Order: sequence, then C-alpha cells, then structure tokens
Amino acid sequence: MAIGIGIAGAGTVGSSLVRRLIEGRAVVTAKTGLDLVVRRVAVRDTSRSRPSIPVDLITSDVMSLVTDPEVAVVVEVMGGLEPAEAVVLEALKAGKAVVTANKELIAARGPRLFAAATEAGVPLLFEAAVGGGIPIIRPLTETLAGEQVDRVLGIVNGTTNYILSSMADDGVDYEDALAAAQRLGYAEPDPAADVSGADAAAKAVILAGLAFGTWVTSDQLHAEGITDITAADFEAAEQLGFAIRLLAVAERRPDGVSARVHPLMLPIDHPLATIRGATNAIYIEGSSVGQLLFAGPGAGGEPTATAVLGDIVDAARENMSGSRVAPAIRVEPGDVVDFGKIDTQWYIRLEVSDSPGVLSQIAAAFGEARVSIRSVRQEGRGNRASLSLVTHTAPEAAQRAAVATLRSLPVVESVASVIRVESEEA
Amino acid sequence: MAIGIGIAGAGTVGSSLVRRLIEGRAVVTAKTGLDLVVRRVAVRDTSRSRPSIPVDLITSDVMSLVTDPEVAVVVEVMGGLEPAEAVVLEALKAGKAVVTANKELIAARGPRLFAAATEAGVPLLFEAAVGGGIPIIRPLTETLAGEQVDRVLGIVNGTTNYILSSMADDGVDYEDALAAAQRLGYAEPDPAADVSGADAAAKAVILAGLAFGTWVTSDQLHAEGITDITAADFEAAEQLGFAIRLLAVAERRPDGVSARVHPLMLPIDHPLATIRGATNAIYIEGSSVGQLLFAGPGAGGEPTATAVLGDIVDAARENMSGSRVAPAIRVEPGDVVDFGKIDTQWYIRLEVSDSPGVLSQIAAAFGEARVSIRSVRQEGRGNRASLSLVTHTAPEAAQRAAVATLRSLPVVESVASVIRVESEEA
Repeated sequence: MAIGIGIAGAGTVGSSLVRRLIEGRAVVTAKTGLDLVVRRVAVRDTSRSRPSIPVDLITSDVMSLVTDPEVAVVVEVMGGLEPAEAVVLEALKAGKAVVTANKELIAARGPRLFAAATEAGVPLLFEAAVGGGIPIIRPLTETLAGEQVDRVLGIVNGTTNYILSSMADDGVDYEDALAAAQRLGYAEPDPAADVSGADAAAKAVILAGLAFGTWVTSDQLHAEGITDITAADFEAAEQLGFAIRLLAVAERRPDGVSARVHPLMLPIDHPLATIRGATNAIYIEGSSVGQLLFAGPGAGGEPTATAVLGDIVDAARENMSGSRVAPAIRVEPGDVVDFGKIDTQWYIRLEVSDSPGVLSQIAAAFGEARVSIRSVRQEGRGNRASLSLVTHTAPEAAQRAAVATLRSLPVVESVASVIRVESEEA
Repeated sequence: MAIGIGIAGAGTVGSSLVRRLIEGRAVVTAKTGLDLVVRRVAVRDTSRSRPSIPVDLITSDVMSLVTDPEVAVVVEVMGGLEPAEAVVLEALKAGKAVVTANKELIAARGPRLFAAATEAGVPLLFEAAVGGGIPIIRPLTETLAGEQVDRVLGIVNGTTNYILSSMADDGVDYEDALAAAQRLGYAEPDPAADVSGADAAAKAVILAGLAFGTWVTSDQLHAEGITDITAADFEAAEQLGFAIRLLAVAERRPDGVSARVHPLMLPIDHPLATIRGATNAIYIEGSSVGQLLFAGPGAGGEPTATAVLGDIVDAARENMSGSRVAPAIRVEPGDVVDFGKIDTQWYIRLEVSDSPGVLSQIAAAFGEARVSIRSVRQEGRGNRASLSLVTHTAPEAAQRAAVATLRSLPVVESVASVIRVESEEA
C-alpha cells in the first residue's frame, strides 16, 4: 500500500528529500517494506525552476498538504515560525503524521505542538532539528527513556565549530576565520543566527526539554556567541591545555534545570575537544549509563534529509498500524535555575599596568566576590603586563561581580577576555 | 494502566533491571507516563540469596513468564541459546512483546526470531545486544532506515579494547595486559569468547544484518582475536602513526556483503583510534549522511540495563497502542563476499638473516603474489634484521599467499606479526 507524503518547502533539505524519495523509492521499499510516494511539494515561488521536482507535484498552496486525503505524512522543511506552525498544527489536527526539521519551531512552540500530537494520537517527529544527520532525538526519548540524564553538552552549530577550529589551527582572528568560512559556504552571508549563539540556543531548549521534560523559554536561557573570541584566547587555551568550543549545555540541578549556550574551554582530552570543523557532537552523562558521545554531520542537505527520511519511515510504519500513537515526549512545568546561581569556572585575561601592588589589588577583587584563583600567569610587555587567570568554581554571579570590580580598577587597562572553563572540579 | 513485565535471568543485568524497575517505578512513570510493574523474575537457582529482588516475584519456571496473562513484556537477560530461544519464541507466539540483550541468540537465530515477531505483530527489541548502553540498533534501523549505509566499523568488545589500550600505554605484552584486566574485572577468568573475537563476531553479524538486510552465518564470517599481538607490534604501530584496535567490520561491496572481525591498525587521528579502555564505539559511513560516531560504555550491568529499560518502555508504548506492529527489521537472503576477495592492506613484521639478497627475495615473494609494498623499515640486530613492511591494498587471498611464500623462504626466520591496516587508500 502506497503511503502519500506531502512536503512543505523545497530548499536544500526539501530538494534532497524529494530527489531521494523519487529516485530511491525502490531502495526504500526494499529496505523498509514501505512504498512512499510524494504527492505534493509546496513551494513559496512556483516560477523558480526546480529540475529535480516533477512539475505536477508542485503547488503554492501549502495548506493543500493538509486537506489532500492522499497525504498521510506531512513533512515541514520550510523553516521559520510562520506559516510552519500553522501547517504543523493543522496537519496534526487532521490526523496526519508530521515530520519537521524546524528547530526554531520546536524550540518556540514544542509543548503546544506535542499536546496537539498527543490529542490527535499521531506522531510528531523531528530528528533533524538537532544535530542534522546525527541520531539524537530518538536515543534521548526512546533508548534513554528509563535513564536519569544528568547533563547534555552539545556542539550543535557547525558554522561556529568550523570558525573556532580554523582559529585554533591557523592562529587567525575571528573576522578572518568568519570571512574564510563564508567563502567556503560554511557560514551564511548574514552569520548572526550562528555566531550569536541563537541557533545553538534553540537546540539547547530542545535537548533540555527531551532530557529533563522541562521546556525552557528563550528568556530563561543565557546565550552567548563567539564574536568576542580572539587569537590570543587560543594561544592561552593551548598553553593551559584547553580547546575552545561553543557549547549548548543542559543540566539537571537539585533546584531545577539549566540550559545555556556559551564558549567553553575544555581539556584537550575531552571527547568534545576532538570534534573539528563543521562536525556536530552531543555528549550525554547519565547516572546509570555513564557517558555517551554521538558525532556526525550537523548540517547539509543530504545528512539532514537522511534524518527526515528516517522519521518519514517511522511515521509511515505508525500510520500502517492504524492505531493511536502513545506520545514519546512528555513536557511538564518545571523549575529553571537562574544562570547566576550555577557554579562556573572562568578563564580571565587582563591587561594591567606593570606596577607594584597590582596583583594584590586584583586578588582583593576576587576575594571580595568570594572567588578563589586557581592559577595566574603573568607576561610582562614593557610597562604593561598581561595576566591570565583561571578561577576555581564559584557561582556565575560571583564570577561576574569579580570581573565588574576588575573593570573598575584603575590598574586594569582592559579585561581582554573571559571564557568559562570545564575542568575536573566543575 | 499497569503493564506487567516478566524477566528471565537475574545476573548482573537482570538484577540492575529489577532494582531500577522497582525502586525507580515512579521516576519512569513521571518520565514516560507508563506504569511498569515487575510480575515475575525467573532464575535458575531459587535458593540463592538476591536481596534486591522481592522473594514473591522469584520463580524457577521460566515458561511461566509466557503463560502468565499479566505479563505483557517478556525480558530475556539469561544469555546463551537455550532455553533463551524457546522463551523468546514462545513469548512472541503468545503475542507478548519481547526485549532481549542476548547477542549470541540474535546473531544465531535472528531471521527466525524476526519472522516470528512479524507473524505475531509484536515488537522484538534488542538495543542492548550490541554496544551495551550505546543506542545503535534503533539509529541503524530507524533513523538510518532511508540511508544507504556503506560500512560499519565497531569497537564492540570492551575487554579486548581495554587490553589493547593498556598494551599501548604501558608497553606490556598480551599476557600481562590480560592478567591485569582479569585482576580489575575487565576480563573473565575464562577470556576465550572475548579475546578470540567470538563475542565481536556475533555483534558483527547483527550490525551487518541491520545495516544491509543480509544475515551472515558464522561460517561465512572471518573472526580473528588479539592473542597474537605483541608489545613489538605496538612499538611498530606507534612509529608508523597507527593505533591497533579489534574491529567488527560490516561492509557493502558491489558483489555482496562482508562481515569480519580482526585487529586493525588505524591512523591515530581516526575517530576509533581515540577510543580507549573498556569503551565501545561504532562508526557508520553512509552515502548521504557521511560519517557518524557513537561511543559509550559497551558493557556493565547498569549501562546495559539502561538500554534494556529503553526497549521495555518502547515495547510498553506499542503494547498500549494495542495494534499490530510493523516490523522495523527486514532480513532478505543476500550474497556474502568471501573474505579472500576483499581488498586489504597489511602490516608485516619479519625476522630475517641479515645477508645480501634478502630484500630482493622478499620483494620477489610479494611480486609473485601481485602485492606491492608501500613502505619498508629495516632494523639490524647483529647478524639478523627485523623488517617492518606495509603493503598496498590487494585481495586478502593475495596477501595471505605472499605471507605463505615468505614463511617458506630460508632467509626468513619468522613472520613475527601480521596485522591489517586501514589507510586512505583502502
């Protein structure tokens, strides 16, 4: 029995997907026993030439995917919130299985969409929303369904990991690394969503929601990008035995859940420190299972289409069973811990005037904030000096207070850099 | 509604599982919405004390799990073929969902068991059979359902990886590393199943079957262990820039499928070369998705129980939907390529007499077998010399023929070592 697929969006992922569903139809049938047939492909601009999509499948009416009785699975690969949300909600209400790759939509509207899917008794699948081609949603929600997950750390943005890797390898500054990434197609002409951490933040919301069942809103989440990182930071990181990565962090704390995005210095032997280039990786710590690492291509039309196709196969299997689907994802209200209360450890680089008593003033600033210093390295440069400090763990708010005091000291010419550090004691 | 669970086996995994199902009942319910209740635990010896298992749950009659109408999910964690196979088959026939961690059973009887599950319309899940706590079965069969997988390389035996890691780190020989592993509990008193490659071979059968749909029988599979590897091999590997790992290999070839287990020298920057100690890892290459890596604890009661628990939750969800389950695993008859025809690349270490013309005789032996030599390193030791060679790729049978000729040469005192090599050209 053929299962009708309707696809909303024909960008990079949508086009790969249509081509693989049409050209690979027999291959998918041989592998899964399912006959998947593309019924409609909704596009914004029907006048554009799309050689890989048969003309008679193309429609400009995205809602026709919902009303067409021959479409059993609606696939949303448009991106953005509107009209994606309306398409997904209406499709669920119409009893169709929905597959989406839209991290922005899931992050912003997850609980509402999951409730709609539960009410309709149909699957809502979004494996491609985090980590592109890396299976991570299903492992978190199914394989680890009985596990108490303690922490998820993810390199979930390939653009920024590519930029950080090339800064580390080539010793170039952020602007040059970004320009090179743009030339090579690893960064968009407008890189803001990637380099600001906004893209990673949406994925942090999803990871925290699936790992802990608590959906964090964007105003509860601290997101910091990579635009302030310099070549000097990489020099310092190397001397300290650290690599710098932009991480999405989701943690279970005694008083609630924390989700955040920021650069982090990781010991060079940490599994995530070895992840280079545009590769993504997700590291999960569970109380029984220990540490798990998942790595692979986090973006790109073909890997993302693989994840979407896996979801379509799953949705089609459920569809064939004809039954109401028990939801795999449960989101309950829960406490979100203020970032200021989370213990962090900081690397701080200061430019100071090289005069007597400087170090004691700096030490006093930390002492006042109740942050202890783990290591200090001083490098003289004429009548100035560069100080690299690593603190012990202390609440984020205390670390910030110490840095604010430092900035106000006349002997401190500038706080050139602050980057959080992951080490054994954290 | 409570879902009854029957557990066959109360060893390390079974005991962890019972404890987590009983003590963690409320946690699992909060996370999944499912109320899982242990109804029976079948053990071989009822007289043994098991403080973590309530006495009234214990039975010596394993088939009572199948006949008890209150048991909806039968969990087989006994290991071995009998009576495990009978329990699984009868449970499937009785319409119960089955979860097993038994790689030996799945490898030996997979196609028959999958057919029985399909006929009964119930799930047969075995996430824990490969890679312990690492989610790999579900990613291969679900997320990658629409992907053409080309190759799977797995470090799937923690004991041997622990031994190989400690040989590399401490420069000790195999026997000493094994003895240390036994003292620390990483190796069994009888380590044969691990060090011979038999355990990894069962997992290679499963990985090949899930990736390619072709079930390889044990007589079609080449399995080689680690007992012949010496400290000198690690010295040579380090000089050549390689690490040594015992790998399960499953490959799609133009003329069929290949599955095998043998030690392999990997470039030190290969993702699997970084996997140390008892950790397992599976590396998947797909034509669209690119490279994926999954790493984590491959054994141990708690991680394995996590994977089993994930399967139980999945089975219970299916059970609640009350419908016939569409099978996720399809096994068709397929061609298996003879290992002799597969292109391999070899590292070979020879002890030779250091006399004129030796190298030309050795080169002639390779030439005769149509194997070309990529690199040679000679180290004189008095009137003898040690030669380390790396060949270019050639069919496995040709490599073996070359080595057989070498062994017959009077100037060759011994072929001290042969280890296959993975490099760019392979």
